[in-house]
Amino acid sequence: MSLISKTPPPPYYAVIFTSTRTVGDNGYDATANRMVELAEQQPGFLGAESAREELGITVSYWSDLESIKQWKANAEHLEAQKTGRNKWYQSFKVRISKVERDYGLG
Amino acid sequence: MSLISKTPPPPYYAVIFTSTRTVGDNGYDATANRMVELAEQQPGFLGAESAREELGITVSYWSDLESIKQWKANAEHLEAQKTGRNKWYQSFKVRISKVERDYGLG
Repeated sequence: MSLISKTPPPPYYAVIFTSTRTVGDNGYDATANRMVELAEQQPGFLGAESAREELGITVSYWSDLESIKQWKANAEHLEAQKTGRNKWYQSFKVRISKVERDYGLG
Repeated sequence: MSLISKTPPPPYYAVIFTSTRTVGDNGYDATANRMVELAEQQPGFLGAESAREELGITVSYWSDLESIKQWKANAEHLEAQKTGRNKWYQSFKVRISKVERDYGLG
């Protein structure tokens, strides 16, 4: 999760997930790690980048909207989403976006 | 920078900037703070979110592509971009994306 994802040339999709946490771990870290492991096995998954300070930001990259939809409907992920709403997150926002252009260094 | 941006209903644009830093501050923090201050004054700016661990992620939100183009061409920002390439960043990637859908909690 900690390096810049080697995504293919655009277009592709980015799911920008920003969140603030509640106090305490409450099983969050283990599930977060498991969700990365599980996401990596999904069709259309291209990579993910993550950082947290006061705000947490995770951006996952996907080849198309159908892959994002399938991942959102994954049974184990659905359970994690439910616990996220009820326990782990004080607030969050999910933004689904189409990457049209990219450039970089290194 | 540390809270979830209150963006309007989609569509709008997200510039996803992910980076790894070189060692040492070298004036980075002061310029980063100044760039936020300056971005907030630009036409079309909707908000920005930022977090850094091993990887740094800053997502800025904009009303349209023209606003992003103008911000990239801002004289003081151009100088910062140059120093970023030469001194502050080991690697970075800029992804320009169109937010098509969003939802959240809180």
